[in-house]
Parts: sequence; C-alpha cells; structure tokens
Amino acid sequence: MTSHHSSPVNSGTNLDPWFGHYAARAAGLSASEVRALFAVASRPEVVSLAGGMPFVSALPSELIRQSFERVMTESGPQALQYGSGQGTPELREQILEIMALEGIRGSVDDVVVTTGSQQGLDLVTKLFINPGDVVLAEAPSYVGAIGVFRSYQAEISQITMDEFGLIPAALCERITALKSVGKTIKFLYTIPNFHNPAGVTLTWERRLEILEICRSESILVLEDNPYGLLYFDGPPPQAMRSVETEGVVYLGSFSKTLAPGFRIGWALAPHAIREKLILANESAILSPSSFSQFVVSEYLRSSDWKAQINTFRGVYRERRDAMLAALDENLPDLRWTVPSGGFYVWVTLPEQIDSKSMLPRAVKELVAYTPGTAFFAHGEGRQSMRLSFCYPTTDAIRLGIRRLSSVINGERELLNTFALTGSFASIRGNDKVTTPPPNVN
Amino acid sequence: MTSHHSSPVNSGTNLDPWFGHYAARAAGLSASEVRALFAVASRPEVVSLAGGMPFVSALPSELIRQSFERVMTESGPQALQYGSGQGTPELREQILEIMALEGIRGSVDDVVVTTGSQQGLDLVTKLFINPGDVVLAEAPSYVGAIGVFRSYQAEISQITMDEFGLIPAALCERITALKSVGKTIKFLYTIPNFHNPAGVTLTWERRLEILEICRSESILVLEDNPYGLLYFDGPPPQAMRSVETEGVVYLGSFSKTLAPGFRIGWALAPHAIREKLILANESAILSPSSFSQFVVSEYLRSSDWKAQINTFRGVYRERRDAMLAALDENLPDLRWTVPSGGFYVWVTLPEQIDSKSMLPRAVKELVAYTPGTAFFAHGEGRQSMRLSFCYPTTDAIRLGIRRLSSVINGERELLNTFALTGSFASIRGNDKVTTPPPNVN
Repeated sequence: MTSHHSSPVNSGTNLDPWFGHYAARAAGLSASEVRALFAVASRPEVVSLAGGMPFVSALPSELIRQSFERVMTESGPQALQYGSGQGTPELREQILEIMALEGIRGSVDDVVVTTGSQQGLDLVTKLFINPGDVVLAEAPSYVGAIGVFRSYQAEISQITMDEFGLIPAALCERITALKSVGKTIKFLYTIPNFHNPAGVTLTWERRLEILEICRSESILVLEDNPYGLLYFDGPPPQAMRSVETEGVVYLGSFSKTLAPGFRIGWALAPHAIREKLILANESAILSPSSFSQFVVSEYLRSSDWKAQINTFRGVYRERRDAMLAALDENLPDLRWTVPSGGFYVWVTLPEQIDSKSMLPRAVKELVAYTPGTAFFAHGEGRQSMRLSFCYPTTDAIRLGIRRLSSVINGERELLNTFALTGSFASIRGNDKVTTPPPNVN
Repeated sequence: MTSHHSSPVNSGTNLDPWFGHYAARAAGLSASEVRALFAVASRPEVVSLAGGMPFVSALPSELIRQSFERVMTESGPQALQYGSGQGTPELREQILEIMALEGIRGSVDDVVVTTGSQQGLDLVTKLFINPGDVVLAEAPSYVGAIGVFRSYQAEISQITMDEFGLIPAALCERITALKSVGKTIKFLYTIPNFHNPAGVTLTWERRLEILEICRSESILVLEDNPYGLLYFDGPPPQAMRSVETEGVVYLGSFSKTLAPGFRIGWALAPHAIREKLILANESAILSPSSFSQFVVSEYLRSSDWKAQINTFRGVYRERRDAMLAALDENLPDLRWTVPSGGFYVWVTLPEQIDSKSMLPRAVKELVAYTPGTAFFAHGEGRQSMRLSFCYPTTDAIRLGIRRLSSVINGERELLNTFALTGSFASIRGNDKVTTPPPNVN
C-alpha cells in the first residue's frame, strides 16, 4: 500500500495520484473505525458516554478573562510573539510546583512545554522508535498513544492488567519473550493513575517493582499522568518519577485540570533526553503558543488553582458515583472497574456480546460508548467498553446507562434466540477471544 | 552515534545513559551552531538583524482584547475545549477568503489548521519521506525546513536561484542527475514570495515552468507562503496553487500577518493528502488550539484585517528602505538582494570573508546577523548573510548597518594585512567556495 517506488499514476483502483508516494509510516495512520458513528453520536439527543472531554463549564470563565486581561496589559507583545522551544521559564517553574504535589522534585531546566501531552508522546516516540522497535503498553491502553506508536512503525506489545494495574510478572515474562526473539524494546508506556481506559490505579508496590524491572532491562518508562490530581477518595500513590530520575520521562497536562483548548502539556525528562526533546519540539512547531502559555501562567499565578481542581474533583466524583449506582441498578450482572479518580469506567460485557457491532444499535437508542477494540493494537477488546462520566450531567449519565441496559438486554435476547438455533457465531462474525480486562465490582 | 542495538551503559565518552537507545532519525536533530551566540545577541544593547520575529507591537492590542472578550462571552466552553483535528469550520472558511487574495480557490474541506505552518511542514514530511528520499529545495532555504527534512532523514538537494528565484533549468538538471543514480525524489519545497532568506520572488513564468516540470516528473510541490501578503511595491505573482490543484500542498500562516504567539497556520492539500494530514495532525497534537483558533476567527470576523495587513506593509516597507539605504551608504561595494516584500535581505560578502567566523566579532560590536551557512544543508553559504529588517526600528537598522560596516571593514583590513604575508587562508580556516547567492544590487 505504501511502496514508494511506484509512479503516482492513477490506476483504476485508487483515485489518489500520490498513492505510491507516501512514506512507509503513513500506513500506520488510519481513521478510527467508529469515527463516522461518533459524528452521529455528537447530536444533542444522544447521551455520549464515549468522549474524554473534560467538563470545562465548571471553570469560571471570569478567571480566564482576568488572566487574559492582565497578560495583554502587562506583556501583550511577548504573548503575541514567538517564544522559546522549551516554553516560558515562568510556566516551567509553576509546572514544578504542580508536580511537587505528586512527589516529584525536578529542575526547571528539565521541563519542556508541549502542545498538549499528546505532543510529548509524539516527540518521545519520534526520538526513540526505529521501525520495528517495541513499545510496551498496558492492555488496554490510551487510543491516542497507540496511534502515535503506530505512526512511527513501532511494534506495540500490550501487557495484562488487573484491578491493581499492570502486572509486574506479566511484564517480566513479556520482556523475556520479546528478547528471546531478538526484539529491541525501547520503552514502557504507562498511565499509573486512574487509567484511560481501564479506570484502575497502579499500586505503590507495583510502581517500585516495575521501575526495578525496567531499570535492570534498560527500558525507559514513559509515565503519562493527565488525571493524577483528579482523585475522589484521597490522592493516588506518588508518581513513578518521584523515585526514579534517569529512567522516567514524565508527561503532564493542563487539559484535564484546567482546559484542553489551550493545548498546553509538558514533559519532564532526564537531562540528555530533555535536550533532544527541545530540538524535536522546535523542529515540529518552532515554539509552543506564547499566547496560551502566558494566559495559563497568569491563571496559575493569580487564581486559587488548587481550589479549582478541588471543584473539578467534586463534579467528577458525583458523576462517577451516579454512573456506578446506575450500573448497579440497571446492569447488576455485568462487571466493571471502580475508578478512584479520573474519567473512566471499564465495563466487561456478557460473553459473546460484541461491543463494536452493538454500537450502531446503541446510537440508535441514543446512547454512545467507546468499544474496547479502540484500546488495543491488534483487535482485542470486543467484550469490553469504556464509559466516560466526565462530560454528561448525573441525570444524563443515569439516562444513558438505562438506555445502555436496554440495548445490552436486547442483545442478550437476540443472543439467546440464536443460541437456541446454534447460528449465533456466524451472525456475529466474531469468535475472537478477548483479552481479559481488569475487573473490580 | 545512534546505533539502537547497543546497551545504554555509560561509557567514558558519553554521559547519557540512553545514548544507544535513540532512533536513527534523532541524529538529524542538532542544535544550531550559532544558538549560544544568539542568546548573547538578544541583549538589549545588541542590534539584532538576525531574527525573523514580526513586529507585533504594530498590532493594536485592543483588537485582540475585543476579540477575546467576545469569544469568552459567546463561546467560552467551546474555546476551552478540545476541537476537531482539522480545525474549526469558521476559521477554515476565513482562510479561504485570505487565500483568494492570492488567486487560490479551494474547498473548506481541504484546509487543515496546523500549529503554525512549521507543523504543516513537519506533517507533510512525516507523510512522504522515507529515510534517504530526496527533498528538493532552493539554495539557500528556510533553516526550519532544513531541520524538519533532516529530522525525517531526507536527503536535501538544494538548487541554484538567481534574482528571479529558483532556476527551472537547474531544477531539470538536478532531477535528471538524481534519477540517474536511482534516487527517489518526493517533493520540491519552495518559498516563491519574498524568499526566506534570499529575499527574491519567483517570476510568474518560472512558476508555470516549475509546475510543469514537477507535474511531468510526478514531484509534489510544497509551496510555503508566509510572506505573500506583505508586499511593498504591489502584489507578487499569484500562488502556484492558483493554477495547480492536484500537485501542490500550500502552506499558509497567521504568524506574519497577525501574530506568531497564536501558533496558527494551515495547509491546503489535494483531497487524499488532506485526509492523511488530518490523521497525522490528530496523532501529533489531537487538535489545534481551540482557544487560539476562536480568537483568530473572531479577530478576522470583527476587525478590518486587510487594513491591519496594510499597516504592517507600511512598517516593513519603511524598514526595508532604511536597510537598503544604509547598505548603499555604508557598504556600497557589497552585493545584496532587493526584496519587494517580506522580512529579509541576502548579502554577499567580499570574497574570503567568512560570515560565520565573523559573527562573534560582530556581536562584540553589538550587531547580529544570521550567517549564510544556516540556510544550507551541507555547509555552503559562508560568504553570505541574512539581514532581517522586520523587527528593529529604522534608527536601529541604520545603527546596525553602520556597526556591521565597521566589522566588515575591519575584516577586510585584516584580510589585506594577511594577504600581503600570504597566510590568510590558513588563518581563516575556510577555503570553501560558496554557492553563488542570488544578487541584485
């Protein structure tokens, strides 16, 4: 599909005159199969439990206005100008204060401001991955990370989790197996807190075990922590970066604790890697937006941002509680994870119900979710779904779960009917065994 | 240096424990050799003719404040939220209006908003370049583009220009030569208007010739046009994209006509390429900043942006005139290009004066410029320098050129002294013949 030696002549089979010209890595860029459906799901009458959009309306717009006004008064020309590829020194200092809440001590020199932490993921992957190199990740893992790894032709190897997060023994086994066939493992990508999509949190003991394994195997750890401050029942264990400086690149973000529209995230990296990240950042975008950085900086300087995060915690805690209660009430025989923070619940469906093929029917019944397949690189996850409680109101969540329950029960009836005739498997077109998802219920 | 199979053990020669782990492409990321010097050159007492920073102070901050205020009143939550990977429909419509000024008709569906046009460059290169593929570019070319091409391991082949821009016959010859040794040429990167750094503009006849050559050779044209609307003596020829839809990816930017701090640029691409650009954009950053896009959109909707661009033209025209007059007065025997728009003059030094090794002395005399070597992939350009007239005031420009003249004359004296003793060459350490730069004077 991406041979780069053929000439770009239209054949009858492809209308793109540049068909033969793309780089090999372009084959890794593919649209989500459920993208078209999500366009439908964004209609107002649909309750979407699919997206990961934070509830920015809980942020008083007055705080942003005041910050902006002060920025334009005090430093308009700088805010409108190009900046440093590393980000402004003031914002990097403030980022250190935020990370200190999770036990991290670092130098302002080792922070690189990025265009959302997504760009941090992209830059680290660009720096480390040759085609065919292995990235280890949790099973399931963040869909946007899988996309980035693919776009640099990484081989993605996903490792089993349970309710305490990634399983160290499974990590060891996988490393041994990959090394025995000559694979080069570059890094472990992990979301230790309030995992997206699994909703679980890696225990402190496991953090230490995993760091030790990666240290002894010379595998870099990419610790992605967008949700860590959004805890509902007390803070999660401290960041892995808090006890390991040289072996961890830490990614943080303002997208969930402030607002994603600014597109401001950051990486905290060991000295040498940080130097290369800055160069990669400059190559990609010259410099992160001064405009966004100045406004975020002023907001952090002049607002009680910790109180604001506490407000967010309250909003999301209430929504999580509503979702868990609604699941208990409407779908008591299903299994799901119980997140102690973040945005997501991971639900395991009855055997043979396929979350992906059920989605059109769900959208028809005015409820949307993300099928588990989105979070696996190789097609697993059909028996699971991610439900987000971050954006809809508690009433909408209750309504959405009721609708979902009716869709799932409809599927079960269909399943039972066809089970009697023995023709279910051929109709579903899905006899794949799904990777066991993490389960707490 | 980037073998990815060696283990990350500290050797005595490298302190980076991840030394052996980087991807092969990371070797293409290198800091500018003059970066340290530019840190010194940013001291206020130095007249910098080095940077390409637009003079954002000519933009009434009131216009931005009003736009922001309306955005927060009318669409605060959307401006703070994630957006589409392609950019907002409203901004893409407005971008079409802007491009219409340069003769371009396109569909709003084929516009992709990027984090500055630098990111457009990065994404197109990521999509097309396998290691070893050839990118054709002008000699000299934009330093940031050379950096991107290197970061994806492209082979960069730079082609001679004269005062009318890229020379079509030289392009043909180069293509033939590259093909004869089996090279795969992916695209031609060109800045047709007010070239950075050469200051020249590609004639209309040559635009047509070059498009014809690239069409017949199946080479994509990447038309980079950040300066097109900043003309001083009447508009430049229409965009290459105005007469060629399928063979051109056009890159535009608000960085020079509004402000770079927003980091908003765009690509207009043939349908199939555009689809892949959106996926690459989502992979890299999820979505361009909603916050920036909404403010830029509102500015375009409610302000007389054409009048504002006209104001910028006046400011930069006056500065160009000051620079050309000062060159005439102080360095009459040098050669330089006469830009009819944009930010830059390209100056050719007397033979054997090396712009790169002269720079520390210039900074000591409180004037900075960019040595020509920055704009070549393979070390050429020592006999040239880029002077920017965009940021300093006319007084500062006159002062800067006087200082520069004294530095150059000092070099000449030194040169004459050593020429008498016959030892010049060994002292300069530079006997390289520079590529003939474009010259009009």
